[in-house]
Amino acid sequence: MEFPDSMRAAVLVKQSYPLQIEHVQLPEKLNYGQVLVKVHYSGICGSQIGEIDGIKGNDPFLPHLLGHEGSGEVLAVGPCVRRIKSGDKVVMHWRKGSGIDSPLPEYQWNGKKLNAGFVTTFNEYAVVSENRVTVIPENFPMDIAPLFGCAVTTGLGVINNNAKLKIGESIVVFGAGGVGLNVIQGAAMVSAHPIIAVDIYDNRLEKAAQFGATHLINSRKEDVRASVLKITGKTGADAVIDNTGDTDVINLGYELTSVNGRTILVGVPAKGDNISIYSLPLHFEKNISGSHGGEANPSIDIPNYIRLYQNGKLNLDHLITDRFTLGEINIAMDKMRSGKITGRCLIKM
Amino acid sequence: MEFPDSMRAAVLVKQSYPLQIEHVQLPEKLNYGQVLVKVHYSGICGSQIGEIDGIKGNDPFLPHLLGHEGSGEVLAVGPCVRRIKSGDKVVMHWRKGSGIDSPLPEYQWNGKKLNAGFVTTFNEYAVVSENRVTVIPENFPMDIAPLFGCAVTTGLGVINNNAKLKIGESIVVFGAGGVGLNVIQGAAMVSAHPIIAVDIYDNRLEKAAQFGATHLINSRKEDVRASVLKITGKTGADAVIDNTGDTDVINLGYELTSVNGRTILVGVPAKGDNISIYSLPLHFEKNISGSHGGEANPSIDIPNYIRLYQNGKLNLDHLITDRFTLGEINIAMDKMRSGKITGRCLIKM
Ligand SMILES: [Zn+2]
Ligand SMILES: [Zn+2]
Repeated sequence: MEFPDSMRAAVLVKQSYPLQIEHVQLPEKLNYGQVLVKVHYSGICGSQIGEIDGIKGNDPFLPHLLGHEGSGEVLAVGPCVRRIKSGDKVVMHWRKGSGIDSPLPEYQWNGKKLNAGFVTTFNEYAVVSENRVTVIPENFPMDIAPLFGCAVTTGLGVINNNAKLKIGESIVVFGAGGVGLNVIQGAAMVSAHPIIAVDIYDNRLEKAAQFGATHLINSRKEDVRASVLKITGKTGADAVIDNTGDTDVINLGYELTSVNGRTILVGVPAKGDNISIYSLPLHFEKNISGSHGGEANPSIDIPNYIRLYQNGKLNLDHLITDRFTLGEINIAMDKMRSGKITGRCLIKM
Repeated sequence: MEFPDSMRAAVLVKQSYPLQIEHVQLPEKLNYGQVLVKVHYSGICGSQIGEIDGIKGNDPFLPHLLGHEGSGEVLAVGPCVRRIKSGDKVVMHWRKGSGIDSPLPEYQWNGKKLNAGFVTTFNEYAVVSENRVTVIPENFPMDIAPLFGCAVTTGLGVINNNAKLKIGESIVVFGAGGVGLNVIQGAAMVSAHPIIAVDIYDNRLEKAAQFGATHLINSRKEDVRASVLKITGKTGADAVIDNTGDTDVINLGYELTSVNGRTILVGVPAKGDNISIYSLPLHFEKNISGSHGGEANPSIDIPNYIRLYQNGKLNLDHLITDRFTLGEINIAMDKMRSGKITGRCLIKM
């Protein structure tokens, strides 16, 4: 098998600037626990927009690679890798699954070290930690597979593991992007009712309805508080999920959570932007918590979700709405920022 | 309003004998926390068969009334009752909801005390504890309502509260009676897969398929162990639910539960009949537990499930398969024992 020595990759050189498509040197050999993947497709997640735009503050790792959901084929494995073998079709995901936590990969660019995490996907090849790779069936569609890297596993994980939503409970979902749509899909999959989607774009709300939202609220046109309480009754909702990271939205979402309900934070506010909530109900049964990728376990969840998809019980085909090449990645980023992407955006390598 | 002084009721006089339809005296007035209900419909649950047939051993409460899921209209309320008022349409349920735990009712038969629990439903009128009654919408169908007293709330509760089944997990359900069908329905409602129904009657398995079972096993015709493992793979199932109370079935179900799965017991074995299981896996992540009516909270669950039913998300119409009058109650019992009742059997008062 051929071990490539260089590749094209999108590099984040400076925050708030476009990504640069550069020729990057791959390491000469794999370290223990590492897997070399030829990347087929990558998704783009809101968190990459956040990285580029610097919402968490100064980035000490520049320049670096990025992207955290992808699909590809394994070309080689490093020492001690037992779960993955050359030729396997895989999903790449940022949450840890089973397997080795490898050392970080050592890419070079212009003769200097180029940083990268345990998985990156905006690159033609990727040196990935064994525990960030999950094997999928040989014939599984490679463009669907990246959705299991973050959007679907996070969205369904929020329902399964954070909200622990029960049959017949009510839910409000703020932000109907790639993850939000899967939160909505997950809520429908566990027979929640009502499922209230809130967004600022009508096109995204229409998509939300396709994925199971029973009520749609455009927060630029309606008073969200009044509209939600009209639907849920004055008790509010059993679960409120924020995907926006907007602290005003989070504060309102917490208010709209019932006295024994759960406010779950998926979106991350900009650094220094604090939420402001009345804490007394937390002493009783109300709860606010942050989701870490839906606490998904890729090694368990991905095979389960593949089985559901294969049995027609998981809508993924309508999730992919936009496709770009690696060279067009900054166009894709701008389109995401504009709210014009209603589902998930794919980059073909 | 008219307070009746007597009524017809089915009385269990002697274990393993038919119920006797007798004229029973109602108490002259209601005690605190009591509600007088004119019973419209009652369901029959497997546990009444168990009571009549004496599977838990000697019954110290004979003679007594019985039945624990019903619907009706409130005729009067006793002192301190605040949640229920005369004229309310209600579900009667055996699990406690909100409200007062009243004293037990004092019926008389042939001049002697006739025992009864906090709720009984095989009688034309019922003196019921406030916390065993939940108000339903005025126009809700009274023949559907009894299903919320046990079958539906237990079945969905097993999924929600005992198995805590997640999207994409696998489940095996032994026994597809009234509760079992709702366990299966609940599993489908949270997008479990596969959903394997096991029963000894083909007609009940066909019904199970209607309610969402993806695989059907007739244990009189197939090797259950081999058939289940062929479907789930050799790991077994994430959840195994026993509704039969048969210890051989429970032992097998425990074996077919994966190392991090849950065996949930709904059916109750005859007294003295022990289960026999290898305990080592319980030290790790395997778990066996008994369900107490799905740990349902009627005050929360029933309004939620009514909302789902009204929105077409809960199949109740196909659950009622047989209807009898109070005078025919022993015929109904015999038909249940024979396995010829594929869903839930209703008694019209
Ligand atoms: Zn992501
Ligand atoms: Zn019952």
